[in-house]
Amino acid sequence: MSFHHLYEQHQATLNAAIEANRTRVFHAHWPEPPSGKIYGETAQEDGLNAFKTSLNNSFALPNQQGANGNVGGEHSPYGFPLNVQYPAFATDTLIINAQQALIQWKKLSLQERAGILIECLERASKHFFAIGFSTMHTTGQGFIMAFQASGPHAFDRALEAIASGFMAVDAFAESAQWTKPMGKMQVDLKKEYHVRPKGINLTIGCSTFPIWNSFPGMFASLITGNVTIAKSHPSAILPIAICIRSFQETLASLGINPHIIQIAVDSKDSPMTVSLAEKSEITTIDYTGSSSFGNHLESLITGTNKELFTEKAGVNCALIGEVENLDAVLDNIAFSLSLYSGQMCTTTQNIYIPKHGVSTPDGIISFDDVCTKLKEKVDALVLNEKMGPGTLGALHSPAVKERVEKARNLGLAIIRDSESVLQHGFDQALSYSPLILKAESADQSIINEEWFGPISFMIPVDDISAGLQAMKQSIIKHGALTALVHLQQEQLITEATEQLIDAGVNISFNLVGPIWVNQSAGFSDFHGTGANPAGNASFADLSFVSRRYNIIGMRRA
Amino acid sequence: MSFHHLYEQHQATLNAAIEANRTRVFHAHWPEPPSGKIYGETAQEDGLNAFKTSLNNSFALPNQQGANGNVGGEHSPYGFPLNVQYPAFATDTLIINAQQALIQWKKLSLQERAGILIECLERASKHFFAIGFSTMHTTGQGFIMAFQASGPHAFDRALEAIASGFMAVDAFAESAQWTKPMGKMQVDLKKEYHVRPKGINLTIGCSTFPIWNSFPGMFASLITGNVTIAKSHPSAILPIAICIRSFQETLASLGINPHIIQIAVDSKDSPMTVSLAEKSEITTIDYTGSSSFGNHLESLITGTNKELFTEKAGVNCALIGEVENLDAVLDNIAFSLSLYSGQMCTTTQNIYIPKHGVSTPDGIISFDDVCTKLKEKVDALVLNEKMGPGTLGALHSPAVKERVEKARNLGLAIIRDSESVLQHGFDQALSYSPLILKAESADQSIINEEWFGPISFMIPVDDISAGLQAMKQSIIKHGALTALVHLQQEQLITEATEQLIDAGVNISFNLVGPIWVNQSAGFSDFHGTGANPAGNASFADLSFVSRRYNIIGMRRA
Repeated sequence: MSFHHLYEQHQATLNAAIEANRTRVFHAHWPEPPSGKIYGETAQEDGLNAFKTSLNNSFALPNQQGANGNVGGEHSPYGFPLNVQYPAFATDTLIINAQQALIQWKKLSLQERAGILIECLERASKHFFAIGFSTMHTTGQGFIMAFQASGPHAFDRALEAIASGFMAVDAFAESAQWTKPMGKMQVDLKKEYHVRPKGINLTIGCSTFPIWNSFPGMFASLITGNVTIAKSHPSAILPIAICIRSFQETLASLGINPHIIQIAVDSKDSPMTVSLAEKSEITTIDYTGSSSFGNHLESLITGTNKELFTEKAGVNCALIGEVENLDAVLDNIAFSLSLYSGQMCTTTQNIYIPKHGVSTPDGIISFDDVCTKLKEKVDALVLNEKMGPGTLGALHSPAVKERVEKARNLGLAIIRDSESVLQHGFDQALSYSPLILKAESADQSIINEEWFGPISFMIPVDDISAGLQAMKQSIIKHGALTALVHLQQEQLITEATEQLIDAGVNISFNLVGPIWVNQSAGFSDFHGTGANPAGNASFADLSFVSRRYNIIGMRRA
Repeated sequence: MSFHHLYEQHQATLNAAIEANRTRVFHAHWPEPPSGKIYGETAQEDGLNAFKTSLNNSFALPNQQGANGNVGGEHSPYGFPLNVQYPAFATDTLIINAQQALIQWKKLSLQERAGILIECLERASKHFFAIGFSTMHTTGQGFIMAFQASGPHAFDRALEAIASGFMAVDAFAESAQWTKPMGKMQVDLKKEYHVRPKGINLTIGCSTFPIWNSFPGMFASLITGNVTIAKSHPSAILPIAICIRSFQETLASLGINPHIIQIAVDSKDSPMTVSLAEKSEITTIDYTGSSSFGNHLESLITGTNKELFTEKAGVNCALIGEVENLDAVLDNIAFSLSLYSGQMCTTTQNIYIPKHGVSTPDGIISFDDVCTKLKEKVDALVLNEKMGPGTLGALHSPAVKERVEKARNLGLAIIRDSESVLQHGFDQALSYSPLILKAESADQSIINEEWFGPISFMIPVDDISAGLQAMKQSIIKHGALTALVHLQQEQLITEATEQLIDAGVNISFNLVGPIWVNQSAGFSDFHGTGANPAGNASFADLSFVSRRYNIIGMRRA
């Protein structure tokens, strides 16, 4: 089968993505509701069955060659082992496979690559429900979130990266007839401009968003002519393995070497990330994860020509200064803190509040009353049997539970204590509700640390201005992916905007209703700014794509 | 005076530059002939007088505040001291000035910045002849080249950088109304996307092209909201000082803090480049110069967030395999080797030729005959009193003369010896014609080194394929800015293109007539690829501009 028709076939999809990317208006190529009306009445059941069939089984990757043994040890945060064994590949095998695939892939045109990649995504999207259940049972996300984050949202981020890469390469002509007038004569040259990919990309996945955080780097690499190796986190393999098996099947059916996208699986006991990253053939690396390992990677690439794109840890913060409707604000924050038990890189941790209270249309509400109200809002959500368990999901690892214990024992006043939450049908689920503590600005060693998980701090500050300053300094020093601000006076909003732009963080004002600071929308919200210690990359700005290739000029008389 | 009309005033100039940048066709905003008909009948005389008035004098910078003492020790390669004293500025003064200027500059819109920067260039272009004579008498270039390289060509490269920066920032909307449909309800957010410049740019100039190599980084920084400090090379200050004095005068007249563009002057005895580069406030660095200092800069920025853009040394090479007209080819190469005495980063050094000779329509011409013919072509050019001296110019420093001596004493067969050339009116000029040696492929330690200056090597290789392999390996290991290839068979041209794209070098095929491999045309030829050890940057691709800023999102309900 040939692939030459695919660009035309998917041109409308690509053009709509590019248009949304440029204009930043709402766009979703894949609808987010996990609805049978959209994805087929049996899609959910089929997906669940597919997931169940994967369990206690070997995972075949018929189109990835050179396996040597098996590896796998995933455990559902809902309380059972997956017992899935994946083919293991030596680093050298992965590199050789990738080099071979690169020869064909880099010669294809931008349009051909776009058509093929969108076809890969479209066919893999038929597995959204299986991917969703796999994500739920590796990360601990509730099902709806797992479906959205690893399905439509992640696939839209992939499409966004394709669109940004397409825009960047397409910004300059592929060829030109250059005619220089020189008085009575002229010089004529034919020129060509070749996109030269940097080579082999390594995308290092994380345990909480194994697809959403990996696809941007993978597809930004692929559209610009690179090939990619997805190193999955040992605790969250299955979701991306399903995707990559589908991609490889599509590629093989189109006559493309399927090794342009490979998966690398390792175990906690025998990790392979560093040895892969050190390979000279790996020229770009995308990384999502802890700051400590991110810093280690930075030191590894020093003195090499490798490009490293990072999303590391940060300390997200919020300021509640002036509100129109305190209930709506706290409902919103309560959901933010509870969603996936605070295990999003975008979840607020430190909440600054003027010590004299929050300004509302009904007057000032005291710090303590705001804290109490927030506790009640979280209670109302997480103790609601229909809403709570699905919103919270489970803790992705026992380390998060230990961190909750550690926080509880800091000696800080407890505004809301964390308690075990029953996940229907999963008695052994590691599910706990948010812990909310009161901290002081002086507790710098505590609040400057990232407490990944359902842990947050309410911090009184002298006034709004002091709160903004505290946020700014924290972000400059410790990084952040999000900043949430509740203010009403335009002058204060302007001041806050200026301060937080200086700090280099994305800013959300006055969110209420079904939109949360944790959310980052493909095609509209650049995820990460690259401008603070939480990371150097942004999904998917021009720097994110243009650093993956060079342009080689050829001119001839 | 206000600046708000300037965008409209220069919009046609900007749009034409952007269009040329996209399409890569020939474009020149400033004409290259140093002609009285274009620039005014008295322009040349006025420029020469302005240059002469500068000599033995203090150079005033009325709009750059905080000078502390004087510095300057330039010496014309044509044989006399300039005796120009420039105000000296402490690094801290430069940083404080820059920080102050940044506050205003970063808040201007992209359009405002474009209008102001083009106005700066237009007004400074009135000084093209003074800049030309200053360039001649600091770098040693012949006058016509000095006029073009530091005048129209450099200013076009500045305009190109403005155009690329404009394209990059303009690729995404500044604001959006985001409406997410959610069944019967919807979420509305107003969004803004703010360009956050990285901060203060340091552009480290070189001794041979003090403007052409500096303007791209400076103007790419400025258009994206950064401010810049141009650290001039101690032996080539005057040309860029004239530009910056003019820019600052324009800025002050427009009510813009002139410190958005500052000059930093130091001496060989008391250099300030490293102490400036180490300042934490310096966030981007553009560097042109030796590999050894470039590598030192790379080590300095390790572990910081600084972005470094480099053009370092390389070993440019050529292959003469098959030609249509050997005389035309060798005329072209002779001029290439002679132009500015081989002191261009783009000049060919190693010329590979099949040992059995070059294929021509008249049969094979032997290696030795090609060498002899090239010698004759160089002789005919450099011994022609009307053409030779102006083409060669002077050696920019005695170190180049010493390098010629060193090369002559390598023990290699001399194809053409270097001799002293008389520069009319400048008896003391350091002017020498090209030295051409015969080397063997086995002389790796010699030919893998950059012999900056009028030094080149003719190297016999087994055949065309071996020559291409030698070029490829040399470029991958030692870097190059240019590769020149003379081949006729389409199959060989295709093979050479593939090999040299892999090597990551810009390629020129079959140049004859008034177009030389040394030349890199603004808006059409990306200068440098960033893909080999000769540097990581390219004038002016999207990576060159987009790494200078981040985008900060602001969304509000």
